[in-house]
Amino acid sequence: MFQVDLNSDLGESFGNYQIGMDEEILKYVSSANIACGWHGGDPMVMDKTVALGKKYDIDIGAHPGFFDLMGFGRRNIDVSPEEIKNYVKYQLGALMAFCISHGNKIQHVKVHGAMYNMAAKNKDFANSIAQAIYEVDKEIILLGLANSEMIESGKKFGLKTANEVFADRAYNNDGTLVPRGIEGAVIHDVDLAISRVIKMIKTGKVTSITGDEISIKADSVCVHGDNPEAINFVKKIREELKKENITITPISNFIK
Amino acid sequence: MFQVDLNSDLGESFGNYQIGMDEEILKYVSSANIACGWHGGDPMVMDKTVALGKKYDIDIGAHPGFFDLMGFGRRNIDVSPEEIKNYVKYQLGALMAFCISHGNKIQHVKVHGAMYNMAAKNKDFANSIAQAIYEVDKEIILLGLANSEMIESGKKFGLKTANEVFADRAYNNDGTLVPRGIEGAVIHDVDLAISRVIKMIKTGKVTSITGDEISIKADSVCVHGDNPEAINFVKKIREELKKENITITPISNFIK
Amino acid sequence: MFQVDLNSDLGESFGNYQIGMDEEILKYVSSANIACGWHGGDPMVMDKTVALGKKYDIDIGAHPGFFDLMGFGRRNIDVSPEEIKNYVKYQLGALMAFCISHGNKIQHVKVHGAMYNMAAKNKDFANSIAQAIYEVDKEIILLGLANSEMIESGKKFGLKTANEVFADRAYNNDGTLVPRGIEGAVIHDVDLAISRVIKMIKTGKVTSITGDEISIKADSVCVHGDNPEAINFVKKIREELKKENITITPISNFIK
Amino acid sequence: MFQVDLNSDLGESFGNYQIGMDEEILKYVSSANIACGWHGGDPMVMDKTVALGKKYDIDIGAHPGFFDLMGFGRRNIDVSPEEIKNYVKYQLGALMAFCISHGNKIQHVKVHGAMYNMAAKNKDFANSIAQAIYEVDKEIILLGLANSEMIESGKKFGLKTANEVFADRAYNNDGTLVPRGIEGAVIHDVDLAISRVIKMIKTGKVTSITGDEISIKADSVCVHGDNPEAINFVKKIREELKKENITITPISNFIK
Repeated sequence: MFQVDLNSDLGESFGNYQIGMDEEILKYVSSANIACGWHGGDPMVMDKTVALGKKYDIDIGAHPGFFDLMGFGRRNIDVSPEEIKNYVKYQLGALMAFCISHGNKIQHVKVHGAMYNMAAKNKDFANSIAQAIYEVDKEIILLGLANSEMIESGKKFGLKTANEVFADRAYNNDGTLVPRGIEGAVIHDVDLAISRVIKMIKTGKVTSITGDEISIKADSVCVHGDNPEAINFVKKIREELKKENITITPISNFIK
Repeated sequence: MFQVDLNSDLGESFGNYQIGMDEEILKYVSSANIACGWHGGDPMVMDKTVALGKKYDIDIGAHPGFFDLMGFGRRNIDVSPEEIKNYVKYQLGALMAFCISHGNKIQHVKVHGAMYNMAAKNKDFANSIAQAIYEVDKEIILLGLANSEMIESGKKFGLKTANEVFADRAYNNDGTLVPRGIEGAVIHDVDLAISRVIKMIKTGKVTSITGDEISIKADSVCVHGDNPEAINFVKKIREELKKENITITPISNFIK
Repeated sequence: MFQVDLNSDLGESFGNYQIGMDEEILKYVSSANIACGWHGGDPMVMDKTVALGKKYDIDIGAHPGFFDLMGFGRRNIDVSPEEIKNYVKYQLGALMAFCISHGNKIQHVKVHGAMYNMAAKNKDFANSIAQAIYEVDKEIILLGLANSEMIESGKKFGLKTANEVFADRAYNNDGTLVPRGIEGAVIHDVDLAISRVIKMIKTGKVTSITGDEISIKADSVCVHGDNPEAINFVKKIREELKKENITITPISNFIK
Repeated sequence: MFQVDLNSDLGESFGNYQIGMDEEILKYVSSANIACGWHGGDPMVMDKTVALGKKYDIDIGAHPGFFDLMGFGRRNIDVSPEEIKNYVKYQLGALMAFCISHGNKIQHVKVHGAMYNMAAKNKDFANSIAQAIYEVDKEIILLGLANSEMIESGKKFGLKTANEVFADRAYNNDGTLVPRGIEGAVIHDVDLAISRVIKMIKTGKVTSITGDEISIKADSVCVHGDNPEAINFVKKIREELKKENITITPISNFIK
């Protein structure tokens, strides 16, 4: 039996600013990564989004990012590993308060944007994230890019780890993502994207950008809910996964 | 036997900006209210301050305020009760993460500055604060202005409450503080200030600005650590309390 | 010959967050109040919005607000008159840099949200705003609520002033707006709203909420561009004003 | 006749947070770079600091940095050249409003911290800064690291440029600063530091870290005013420059 998680970033609205079709995408995913007020989200939004997660009975994860609302947390900032560790703790704790209030639990942490990209490659940053989780709650799963330093660091600290894959992105031979901007980095053919995910789940393999077969573990697929097209993609991938007898279920149900 | 807590606001530095003689004042108080990143403090400062609190073995409290660094959380902002509730939860949770990491516990919440002043008089805001604490951790003590709405709200939610008094401030007949700016509002005579505190602790009474004797419960005395003079005041009040056989001890030791 | 300005608040997007149908509403108004980065807007948005204003050849005004992105500048903050003055100068100067770059001029200042509401009633705040403009550029028009302290203060400093009226709001007998929340405060009937504006322009009178005829000067009508319905209202009011031979033109064309 | 400017970064306090001995250092320098509210400073501080600059009759420059108060503008942020350009314009304009109010002029722009370091090496960022100045006020001098891309870009846009040198830093053979952290990067011997500056001014040469003589133009020497030791250094360098008949005067007096 095959199973996989579908995760999406939610709760990124801020004050008067609305972003994302949160209540719509929640019907189709099994996990939500909830922004923690730094790159997006504010306490009112966090409270509402945690309540929504409970309503739709999906896994809640913290989605901490850089304190850079103007850049939506997508710009690399030259911080220290110690700073990353404390930034993750701060945001994780803040979301915990809302989860406790709603009788929920934080199941995982997936860092956001630039922090994610930096920690995927930088062992020190990856360790900071794993250590932050470890020191706050050892039961929390570290959801990170498959084959990346984050997964290594999570294992090193004895955390449960979940490998995130991307349906619409090409992979290098070492398992890293081909950077956007390089030709072929983004896969626009929806059917191809879905068939690649199915292959990852069933065989643990993906065809790299050079045409080689490489190993990849697909515990959770990142999907988006910012626009109707993205929602349609999620509906479609759900159908196709079902046809293949792949169960969609939160990572906490199968990551041990 | 009489006992009282001495509390001080700590961890209000931010980034490159240093404020407060934190390590000095920590030697003389029994409780620290630690800023949570909104009116002051940042995750690096919070981590360091929680560690200091543990080193000196004093009670740690969360000190949430408005998101107004430019005004140091001292300016009233016309927020809703729902906003106050979520702002307190957010900051309380953030500090919890650091406390858990250091093997500490949050013993109390004392809101900061304008939020404190507003909630002292506004029942809805007071309820928001009590509810925020109640929904996150019922064991946390609400430290609020003696005789204020905050104490009432804490009791209503079944929380443990601690009454804070000020050595250098005059009181109205209804037990509220005489606003700064009114003549006689601030007591500059150090000996008088201390003798007033001793009387509050021993008799539960204070002489109001009109010369009447009014009831007041003194569980914790607010002291400052921003300058050498303030530190000297704390040393002096410690000596005088000792002479009167009043034990200085964290509120968690005697508030049930 | 009658003439009136139609003004709208623009450039309130921030980073990744889009708000307002700026390019659409620009086709129908004669003045734009551009956010200056505090309650909304960021330097990228300001640059783009000033360029748009030039493209559509409309008057540009600065739209400074409180440093409260989370509350979109709509929450009263208990600042000092000196703070208001410097906050307006800061934001006015920031927008000036973009206007100079694009060969534009700032024609007016209209403060935003809570700052507008506070200054409409508080003489000290109104003076702060007028003084800020006066000290930076005496030629700039102060656009403020008709009959309010802002207009008085502008005149006191010798500034040109423009009276703003609201199509969809009821007025008290003293010329102030009936606060939202009071029954009848908002006029939902579009035809009635437009006929009231036409009467204000042609006769200098409006029927107050008590049914009395009061004096009001209508130099500029505030319209919105956040949603298709609002855009439709602007199209409609344009048509009706045209039928009445009222010319829509920027305030700088007729305020001397 | 030799002349040189002494510049210092001022106005970096924020709200309740005090930093720098601004009024003290102002007695000894000829130019002040005033923070513009992003990495430090706020409108109240800017107003006060511009007034101080006028009182001591020194040149005022804008000192824009990244919107990163938590990192004091010292952390590289992966922004676009377009963002840098608009960030500089925004802050330059904001300071202009205060200068106009006080009857002062902005004589120069010196970007701060990480923005300075990035633009020293990155031609695109350097061009952004020069272009921002050029589009706002062509008369403003670009004060940048001697031998750096900033100086090149300033010349390309036809701006007046001033070369900044550091008394206490070692230079590479290509004229760039030896990065802190490399042995010998910082010159701790005060007399040596001062004699190096005198040599730069008089001969246009400095001995590089490898012992070679390289060309350097010293229009302005960066000095600090954060602590008493720094103030003493400034007093000392003033005396020594005087002995060598080097006149200390603002860059606007000799940069054409």
